[in-house]
Amino acid sequence: MRPRFDRLKTVSAALAVLVSFLSPACRNGGTAEKPRPYEELAERIRTAGLESEGAFTLLGRLTTSAAPRLTGSPQADKAVSLMRSEMERLGLESWLEPVTVQHWVRGEVEKAQILSGPENTETALSISALGWSVATPAEGISAEVIEAESFEDLRAKSAKVPGRIVFFNHPMDRTSLDAFRSYGQAAQYRSRGASEAARAGAVAVLVRSATQRIDDHPHTGMVAYDPQAPRVPAAAVSTSGAEILSAALKENPRLKLRLTFSPQTLPDVPSANVVGQIRGSGRPEEIVLLGAHLDSWDLAAGAHDDGAGCAQVMEALRLILESGIRPKRTIRAVLFMNEEFGASGGRDYARNARRKSERHLAAMESDRGGFLPLGFAVGGGPRILERMRRWEYLLASAGIQWMRLGGGGADIGPIVQTGAVPMGFVPDAQRYFDVHHSALDVLESVHPRELELGAVVLAIMAFIVAEEGI
Amino acid sequence: MRPRFDRLKTVSAALAVLVSFLSPACRNGGTAEKPRPYEELAERIRTAGLESEGAFTLLGRLTTSAAPRLTGSPQADKAVSLMRSEMERLGLESWLEPVTVQHWVRGEVEKAQILSGPENTETALSISALGWSVATPAEGISAEVIEAESFEDLRAKSAKVPGRIVFFNHPMDRTSLDAFRSYGQAAQYRSRGASEAARAGAVAVLVRSATQRIDDHPHTGMVAYDPQAPRVPAAAVSTSGAEILSAALKENPRLKLRLTFSPQTLPDVPSANVVGQIRGSGRPEEIVLLGAHLDSWDLAAGAHDDGAGCAQVMEALRLILESGIRPKRTIRAVLFMNEEFGASGGRDYARNARRKSERHLAAMESDRGGFLPLGFAVGGGPRILERMRRWEYLLASAGIQWMRLGGGGADIGPIVQTGAVPMGFVPDAQRYFDVHHSALDVLESVHPRELELGAVVLAIMAFIVAEEGI
Repeated sequence: MRPRFDRLKTVSAALAVLVSFLSPACRNGGTAEKPRPYEELAERIRTAGLESEGAFTLLGRLTTSAAPRLTGSPQADKAVSLMRSEMERLGLESWLEPVTVQHWVRGEVEKAQILSGPENTETALSISALGWSVATPAEGISAEVIEAESFEDLRAKSAKVPGRIVFFNHPMDRTSLDAFRSYGQAAQYRSRGASEAARAGAVAVLVRSATQRIDDHPHTGMVAYDPQAPRVPAAAVSTSGAEILSAALKENPRLKLRLTFSPQTLPDVPSANVVGQIRGSGRPEEIVLLGAHLDSWDLAAGAHDDGAGCAQVMEALRLILESGIRPKRTIRAVLFMNEEFGASGGRDYARNARRKSERHLAAMESDRGGFLPLGFAVGGGPRILERMRRWEYLLASAGIQWMRLGGGGADIGPIVQTGAVPMGFVPDAQRYFDVHHSALDVLESVHPRELELGAVVLAIMAFIVAEEGI
Repeated sequence: MRPRFDRLKTVSAALAVLVSFLSPACRNGGTAEKPRPYEELAERIRTAGLESEGAFTLLGRLTTSAAPRLTGSPQADKAVSLMRSEMERLGLESWLEPVTVQHWVRGEVEKAQILSGPENTETALSISALGWSVATPAEGISAEVIEAESFEDLRAKSAKVPGRIVFFNHPMDRTSLDAFRSYGQAAQYRSRGASEAARAGAVAVLVRSATQRIDDHPHTGMVAYDPQAPRVPAAAVSTSGAEILSAALKENPRLKLRLTFSPQTLPDVPSANVVGQIRGSGRPEEIVLLGAHLDSWDLAAGAHDDGAGCAQVMEALRLILESGIRPKRTIRAVLFMNEEFGASGGRDYARNARRKSERHLAAMESDRGGFLPLGFAVGGGPRILERMRRWEYLLASAGIQWMRLGGGGADIGPIVQTGAVPMGFVPDAQRYFDVHHSALDVLESVHPRELELGAVVLAIMAFIVAEEGI
């Protein structure tokens, strides 16, 4: 790619200008185009954001000094105080709201070994216990393995399940453009697999990691034990480990697998949501919420999930402050605690808001990684979407391609129940599940410009809603 | 991000379905939606592509066995024979078209040293001679430095230029959303800077690398010597080196810089464009061209620039072949030689086409890196754009967000002059200039899904134009 291309681009830009002269305004004897409302402000926000890349700087601070941030961990506490002081540094009105959180800790030992051949040759697989999982006995669980591709497949094989380890080997679909849809399909084996297998008599469960890549990094996540089913130990195996185990089972269906891991569930502990706001100049009692979650999984720094969202929300408020214009309504950042272990932060926040009779006009959430912004999924029905589309040109100036009907996210779900319009920020997801819930979710996997563009679109969207309403 | 989000997504999907019932078709007593033309074919192409990730496999082969592929180099020759045999393996009708190419080779030595203080303490900067640059004397050029931010700045300081090294320190703009625009602004110092400075009496030129990141990798590119000006040695310095030099000049404006590099321009050599095609079933004489360039810079494997484009073009033809449907018109892949050193491949190809009286209906080029597909820039005027927009829904199914008026690319420029409609494939460019023309342009910087999606959209677009015309 050489500058010659840019000359061609100049030609095409000239063509585009020519076309704009053919537009209705011009054909009707048109005048020079005036800047549309807030165009200059949006450009100022974008320019300040992309020049400073402040979201990345803050994410660097968070991921190096408070990581990983598993709910209930000392690093999660550290993240709370770090982000509170960042809010003070920005000059935000800020406070903590208490949340009681679960406290599950991973054990020292996490091992999976294929025992095969007459000498019980051991082949190690990379695994990671799932959140909430009970431990295996200290000496591990050794049992034969039933491989199942789906719940239907498990039911068909149910006679063989008792006393065995169930291995859910459902590859995350690569063919859909919508990676979250493929993720939803694969993740159900992680969340529901243990109880489905236990009901059929399984002694433990191993689940293929929910990623489209083949590598040796297990991707963890929560297991949702059904209270009616026995609790059996559950772990995720790397996709490469899953391929190895599947191939080994084809060769020797009677091989044994030994699983050993030692997580513990401890008593609940106190923690907090971190809240900071720019008070509205005209209608301060109406709140526009920008949310993300501060807790992360424990295998890495949680740079994309959801350090990115936290950094973007904070940076959005900084960019609005820096613009020098204070909008009519209150813009509030909420860094929720405990999204990964049950979303109690989101529930407690909404309960407090109800108690204080607060009115939340809109709630935006960034919890899909710090990737290239693509769109906004706006809830509340087609009429609200139509009204929000008035502002599409402002978001387009920061790279937003579309606004569609859609929902919000896990943390803002409860506040949406109080009447807030959900506005889910949707970045590109093609690379997200490479790193999601794994040891790869580190700062180096985040691109400063992609991250910042998300902060810029959140700032513009929050400002517009706070100034103009919905 | 937990499955709860996906439940919210299910709710919003249900909402979207509800809205679709409010659409005109349904209000008029609508019937079940029929698949639109080619919808199934487009899905088949996308599914096969994303499942196989064949473009990445081919790019792996190219970047490990024929890299770097500087025009005129033995590896460029190897790339020609490799891609020719890949075409034969696919069962394409294929041939080579001779191209005469320039032959410039980088020297062993590339050094820049700041000499300062009474002891001439040496501080090394990372540099890379620009393509076409003449060599310095073996002992280097030592001279004082004039820093200029722009050509205007240079003119203002012209009295001080004679006998000195001009250091163009124009940072590539980070605030624009359009990275190619910022690149165009910065790259003019690389292409025109040497002659502008030489005319004012400079003895050599050092240019800040055209990247938005601060790091220690020089980004090379071509210098365009003006035949009327003396040819002075020219090199790119890393952005971090540029910052160091600029700071040192503030401290000591009289410091000396020693530049030593030893490239050579050798006699032209014969090379080739690699051409392969699927002959049309109805109007084989009408050609839809898919182009990319096979040569690269010499600092790395040229994975994005433009190995990605070559892999996508080949993969697009493979996906069309695999679909089992042969379109009416001929679809031709052209891997052009020598884009980086003057685009003689593109010119020679068009000359041959004229000689053979070939009719090229459309020409698409992929030469903006293997990133997430965003749009198509369609030339030929607003009416053609409108007609092409009939097919937007097909491209949207592979992630394309827009079709706009625009141009094509450097290699297809000459064939566009023969009447072909240019269709420039536009992927996201936020990360491109991190690696462009530098040692970072390696396979690891390419994401298999992003790359493949580009191949998928090229396959769909080429198929549609070949079947339906424009």
